[in-house]
Amino acid sequence: MERVKPHTLSGFMELLPKKQVLMDKITATAERVYSLYGFTRLDTPLIESSEVLLAKGGGETEKQIYRFTKGDTDLSLRFDLTVPLAKYVAMNYSELSFPFRRYQIGKVYRGERAQRGRFREFYQADIDVIGDGALDIMNEAEIPSIIYRLFTELGLTRFVIRVNNRKVLTGFYDMLGLSDSAADIMRAVDKLDKIGPGKVRAILTGDVGVPEERADEILDFISIRGSNSQVLAALGRYAGRNELFDLGLSELSAVAEYLVAFGVPEDHFALDLTIARGLDYYTGTVYETTLLDHPEVGSVCSGGRYDDLAGYYTDKKLPGVGISIGLTRLFFILDDVGLLSDRVPTAPADVLVLPMTEDRSAAVGLATALRAAGIRAQIYAEPKKFKAKMSYANRLGVPFAALLGEDEIASGRVSLKDMRTGQQTLMTAEEAVEAVRGALWSSAGERPVRE
Amino acid sequence: MERVKPHTLSGFMELLPKKQVLMDKITATAERVYSLYGFTRLDTPLIESSEVLLAKGGGETEKQIYRFTKGDTDLSLRFDLTVPLAKYVAMNYSELSFPFRRYQIGKVYRGERAQRGRFREFYQADIDVIGDGALDIMNEAEIPSIIYRLFTELGLTRFVIRVNNRKVLTGFYDMLGLSDSAADIMRAVDKLDKIGPGKVRAILTGDVGVPEERADEILDFISIRGSNSQVLAALGRYAGRNELFDLGLSELSAVAEYLVAFGVPEDHFALDLTIARGLDYYTGTVYETTLLDHPEVGSVCSGGRYDDLAGYYTDKKLPGVGISIGLTRLFFILDDVGLLSDRVPTAPADVLVLPMTEDRSAAVGLATALRAAGIRAQIYAEPKKFKAKMSYANRLGVPFAALLGEDEIASGRVSLKDMRTGQQTLMTAEEAVEAVRGALWSSAGERPVRE
Repeated sequence: MERVKPHTLSGFMELLPKKQVLMDKITATAERVYSLYGFTRLDTPLIESSEVLLAKGGGETEKQIYRFTKGDTDLSLRFDLTVPLAKYVAMNYSELSFPFRRYQIGKVYRGERAQRGRFREFYQADIDVIGDGALDIMNEAEIPSIIYRLFTELGLTRFVIRVNNRKVLTGFYDMLGLSDSAADIMRAVDKLDKIGPGKVRAILTGDVGVPEERADEILDFISIRGSNSQVLAALGRYAGRNELFDLGLSELSAVAEYLVAFGVPEDHFALDLTIARGLDYYTGTVYETTLLDHPEVGSVCSGGRYDDLAGYYTDKKLPGVGISIGLTRLFFILDDVGLLSDRVPTAPADVLVLPMTEDRSAAVGLATALRAAGIRAQIYAEPKKFKAKMSYANRLGVPFAALLGEDEIASGRVSLKDMRTGQQTLMTAEEAVEAVRGALWSSAGERPVRE
Repeated sequence: MERVKPHTLSGFMELLPKKQVLMDKITATAERVYSLYGFTRLDTPLIESSEVLLAKGGGETEKQIYRFTKGDTDLSLRFDLTVPLAKYVAMNYSELSFPFRRYQIGKVYRGERAQRGRFREFYQADIDVIGDGALDIMNEAEIPSIIYRLFTELGLTRFVIRVNNRKVLTGFYDMLGLSDSAADIMRAVDKLDKIGPGKVRAILTGDVGVPEERADEILDFISIRGSNSQVLAALGRYAGRNELFDLGLSELSAVAEYLVAFGVPEDHFALDLTIARGLDYYTGTVYETTLLDHPEVGSVCSGGRYDDLAGYYTDKKLPGVGISIGLTRLFFILDDVGLLSDRVPTAPADVLVLPMTEDRSAAVGLATALRAAGIRAQIYAEPKKFKAKMSYANRLGVPFAALLGEDEIASGRVSLKDMRTGQQTLMTAEEAVEAVRGALWSSAGERPVRE
């Protein structure tokens, strides 16, 4: 037979079983946390009509889109979970109750240039709250508080959610008479961390054409630092000069206050005037999340408040707020910097049942009893030597092996071997169930990340 | 703004939130049951290189495949989960431990003609056990026993897993000197349920060219009916004439015996000589699963034993046994025939917290306490009238609303309203947590299907 070399496309993550367990634990934690906050799960197609998916125009991502025809139909793979949400809400408007809170965890596709840590197929984990005509500011604080809880439950400790407000920025540039250049200015300011204030100033006064003294005012503004109350106090000095700015400042103050009420410690969120998020889409609070020890990877969770989710589909005004985690990339980074825990049990079974006799009915009976008790059990049915069986158990990393030889069967018992200690104890099936159950409790709460 | 009419492609299932909860419950049940039997979860890309995906040749499905190019790369969307498994095992052979037990639940793509109940994007839920060179027969009984358990946990009662063995069929046709026509004969026999024995006989003696007396022998053979022991006894009368047949019969007997040992009641599996599964791929035990009250929908879960998983990628002999559920289609059928339960809680939250005062810190505190106890809570933050708030609670179907007005806050309590009974009780936050937790227990075990 002519053979094809099996391979997986570059930019597509495919994990070995033990790593997959950790990835699954991260995904399951996100699902659990999102559910606790009353978000309902959506599952939308990966393929949409190009007309629908690209209604807004793909912008920078357009050339990255996987687009093709099948028959006469022009199709595209989704490149984020926001456009499918907009479609869904516009389509099902009369069936949904608002505020509509949904989460979606699914794969999206972007044909980016392949490079280390960049993926063409990757999971996004999104939450959004959509209002019908209006949406209370409290949601803009609850969203990052959910991310705080999720990251904490994953086991991360060294992260900060950076918060800003687009109205504050837009109002400030308006105040300076620079509304027309605001987008260019924000793009330049966004590079502050990478290129430093000197070069940002040079871009502002050069390419963007900002007058010298205005550039200094901008640099003063974006270098406002300190505790959240210090930042708010510094912003307060600009109050009363621009309506939009004042509204943004009051929103930012409210968000900061609610974040504390929602239990986010002050050292895990920072008001940061350099955060803008590229898209015009955002109109209020915006978020980025940074791993403190790995600033080089940029934001691992971003989002914000928008006023018009689905204007290209419907005349309903649907404001919302949402945030998205690039789970595949986050997983890659955590693995890369050595933060994935080695304490999470990654074996596919809790007990490997090893029949040592021709008649394997005792093994079937024991496995059935274990499974009935919620314990994951595998029968090793292959007629291999004892050594091969134990070697298999070791390679899988199962915590227990249950040996059923003639002696055990004759006495109606099982030899339960703790694979970590090597200790082997003769006991009844009921005792084995209890022993395994007790041991599993101790590792059940292990978090996928250890920082 | 020019608007695009939002729509979802035909043949793509997209559910409203309450239906999605039921679909998710079915998927979660499959994951839980598969895990209990020691299967590890895999997640492979939806896009593969066409060279890899179509190495075997797509056969009948080839023209249904979503195939396109991106840059210079010839890509295809996976059309099942078996080819990606073959690729994965061949690629990662030295990293895996055999028998390798994996489950995968994921979307696959087939551009079939759109018709009711046919999907172009659908979930498959697969389990496979792959051996390295050999695989014990016990696996061929364990696999359908897992399906029995899964279907039972879903709430289905009226189903039967039909079991046959390809060696019995191949050996029988060999016995009759009809080896060369065996594939055509099996295809004709496969139509027995639909067209009846008379027409099957006509095809056999006509198109297939089987002699009259041989056709009668075939019809006698495939009309063997009765209890599993009666079928085995009837097959025993053919024993001793063909080695492959005898081997197949011993395998079928062993599988029937183990199925009982694994706890599958005799009325939930049937030895059925008409089952063949189209593909040459299968070499031993084969399965189909029928809903007794809906035979018209055909098999909802099929699979079997194969000897060569990945011959087009590797010279390693990798025999295995697997079974696949078309989850999307099964869900569609269950919904269509009215078998989805209306007792599963489908609300996105267990408690809707309703602040009635300007200061909403009590609401935030209560929601935080509920969530800390694992109770799904949503704060309704919009400044709407009481009636609108209660109407929202009713539409979501939340079992409880927690009212926080001035009186409640002043007394450090909450009015917990049971939305089903309308009863409203003033209590502390701790009491509310306990009351909700108790009520949730009673509906936690509801199965997604009610038969």
